[in-house]
Amino acid sequence: MESPNPSTAGKPIRCKAAVCRKAGEPLAIEEINVDPPRAREARIRVICTSICNTDVSFWRMTSSPGGFFPRILGHEAVGVVESVGEGVTELKTGDTVVPVFLPDCGGECADCRSENSNLCSKLPFKLSPGMPRDGTSRFADLRGNVIHNFLSVSGFSEYTVVDVAHLTKVDSSAPPERACLLNCGIAAGVGAAWRKANVQKGSTVAIFGLGSIGLAVAEGARLCGAGRVIGIDAYPEKLEMAKKFGVTEFVNPVDCGDKSLSQVCHLKTPENFELEESGRVINEMTGGGADSCFECAGSPSLMEQAYASCRKGWGKTIVLGVGGEGSEMKLKCMDVLQSGRTLTGALFGGLKPKTHIPILLQRYIHKELELDKFVTHEMEFEDINKAFDLLVEGKCLRCVIWLYRPDQSAACLMPRVV
Amino acid sequence: MESPNPSTAGKPIRCKAAVCRKAGEPLAIEEINVDPPRAREARIRVICTSICNTDVSFWRMTSSPGGFFPRILGHEAVGVVESVGEGVTELKTGDTVVPVFLPDCGGECADCRSENSNLCSKLPFKLSPGMPRDGTSRFADLRGNVIHNFLSVSGFSEYTVVDVAHLTKVDSSAPPERACLLNCGIAAGVGAAWRKANVQKGSTVAIFGLGSIGLAVAEGARLCGAGRVIGIDAYPEKLEMAKKFGVTEFVNPVDCGDKSLSQVCHLKTPENFELEESGRVINEMTGGGADSCFECAGSPSLMEQAYASCRKGWGKTIVLGVGGEGSEMKLKCMDVLQSGRTLTGALFGGLKPKTHIPILLQRYIHKELELDKFVTHEMEFEDINKAFDLLVEGKCLRCVIWLYRPDQSAACLMPRVV
Ligand SMILES: [Zn+2]
Ligand SMILES: [Zn+2]
Ligand SMILES: [Zn+2]
Ligand SMILES: [Zn+2]
Repeated sequence: MESPNPSTAGKPIRCKAAVCRKAGEPLAIEEINVDPPRAREARIRVICTSICNTDVSFWRMTSSPGGFFPRILGHEAVGVVESVGEGVTELKTGDTVVPVFLPDCGGECADCRSENSNLCSKLPFKLSPGMPRDGTSRFADLRGNVIHNFLSVSGFSEYTVVDVAHLTKVDSSAPPERACLLNCGIAAGVGAAWRKANVQKGSTVAIFGLGSIGLAVAEGARLCGAGRVIGIDAYPEKLEMAKKFGVTEFVNPVDCGDKSLSQVCHLKTPENFELEESGRVINEMTGGGADSCFECAGSPSLMEQAYASCRKGWGKTIVLGVGGEGSEMKLKCMDVLQSGRTLTGALFGGLKPKTHIPILLQRYIHKELELDKFVTHEMEFEDINKAFDLLVEGKCLRCVIWLYRPDQSAACLMPRVV
Repeated sequence: MESPNPSTAGKPIRCKAAVCRKAGEPLAIEEINVDPPRAREARIRVICTSICNTDVSFWRMTSSPGGFFPRILGHEAVGVVESVGEGVTELKTGDTVVPVFLPDCGGECADCRSENSNLCSKLPFKLSPGMPRDGTSRFADLRGNVIHNFLSVSGFSEYTVVDVAHLTKVDSSAPPERACLLNCGIAAGVGAAWRKANVQKGSTVAIFGLGSIGLAVAEGARLCGAGRVIGIDAYPEKLEMAKKFGVTEFVNPVDCGDKSLSQVCHLKTPENFELEESGRVINEMTGGGADSCFECAGSPSLMEQAYASCRKGWGKTIVLGVGGEGSEMKLKCMDVLQSGRTLTGALFGGLKPKTHIPILLQRYIHKELELDKFVTHEMEFEDINKAFDLLVEGKCLRCVIWLYRPDQSAACLMPRVV
């Protein structure tokens, strides 16, 4: 581990960052100034950051709730603590940390003390462009103009400042290009299967939407010993990739014809209540429905299908996809009562960052959790716009951007005090 | 316990029943013939049957899915086995039994074997007017015309025939006028708090709708040691009754004015996602929402309010109310994802009849579960129409109808073979 550089502590650092100056335009690698950390913050030397679709969404976003420019994107980072601000006792210079968009105050609020919530009440998750406690930014361009933060992380910068509630200390021996996958969608998918659905050995899982979160659910289901993993996606080309992630059966809703996944057939007979037969393809494949269904696309109708496709009695549907603003899903009241099914949602898969990220990392180190297969590309920092292109074209699950390779000559990367 | 009468076994019995010949008309107490039980059935001498609103609903119902006439209503019965049909090994003449509308095959299907389902797959719950296995009825009038069954129980008859899947054997020393409350709404409410929500000691419960099921949820919450029990109902006169059931706070949605329970206030700020503030009265009272919310009225908007009123992170909403045919509730997709709340429904409160009814009865015998306060009236069989009137007028929680008092002279109640 790199030794701390006491000469930078308490002073601004000049370094390179990929600045997003306008929605949808290529990021500009610029020199910026990074302020020292304030109370309960730490300044981090970023080692690497992977890109996910959330970066792309906010890169394109022209208006609120999330469009702020200029801004430093990137939220799937791993780094080393350069210095800490006032009142930081849990971290010290040289610690390896994973910044996370989701806060975890570590036990100051009821949620962080509870095993059953990962939604910190002290510093609630928000999309604001500043630091969580005071709303200001630690970034400025060389003319002194503020550059906004992103999701409390801003990982596309050689240095960033992060609140301790958004930092999880991890084993420094772990490969950073894998640890950086544990703070967003990949961990969320695995966590949703492991923690939120509590997938049982031999049980049947259905995944609606086979993007990276859906594939991560498949990996989580594999880890939990699921017996059948059914993937549902309208793009048949996803089948080959899905197989690598343990998807055992593939359903294309477009091919279902008569038995369309989205067909809602109301059987009314004098003897029966109205039978809800939506989701009948999965119900027929599984003899009554999957034990757990995961919606990973953010589509209201897919959420309804997932709910209808899970087993009466004990079936659970977990919503992981980000729905459009204002979109609504509908449930038949009688179905809710009579099916006994459970519907829930999980930001970050229900994982508590400070508790569960270290556990997942250990499971990776012990070769139980497979992370390697998610990393389809790696690139140097200066190629970051190529990585955006790959994601936009759908050619990439995760691309890791290297900002600092610890085995490089330290001299050229020494931070420069402004 | 009465000794069996072997002279009746295998033969039809003539006895009195309250026959509903036309929707909404007074029941006629008539002599009928009750066939002997067929395979996997038992004939039961009914001791008493309480009346609930489901009887009133089906009494009034003119068309499908539930309107069949003539019919013998009543489904909250307790009785003694008079004789058993072929293949019945689990019950014998003289056993005290609670017939239940919800089947429990006892382990022949995956649901009955699972701890997490109470929805038998072998003999699924249905509203058909006949016996569950062959669809025929065991009742006929003296001219030989079929009289239909009701919910596999038909408790308003001195004798009835019930499938073993719908019979739970109970302690014969328990008072029948209390045991008869354990096969429908009262047990459902208690069970929903106890089993489905797993209400924790000191936690906060909100009950939407203070009918008998809602009050039973309050009793279940009290039994589980809930700290606060908030009752929501538009009828202020329910407050006094609710207090007896441990409701600690009362909210009348009509009185909320500015802070209307049903007010949905969308705060849009650049820093925040849209905040869903529906259910804000309960959220303000509880500093963020109740730990568990129960919808006991069957109203889609109340289901939405209940969902919005439960705590982010760990909050659960349990739907117990029977919604109108085709009615739907709506959930904001973002709210499902971001709140982490759980929505579920529970027929019979999630209780497995053969497993949980005996447990609840023991808890009553040990003076933990309070059932007495639910019985507001008792009547003789010939006064059954007065009991219907009381329920229709909302003046009654439960009225127990006595069909046979075991301490009476046995002679006059001996069954007559046809
Ligand atoms: Zn917290
Ligand atoms: Zn991400
Ligand atoms: Zn069964
Ligand atoms: Zn009832």
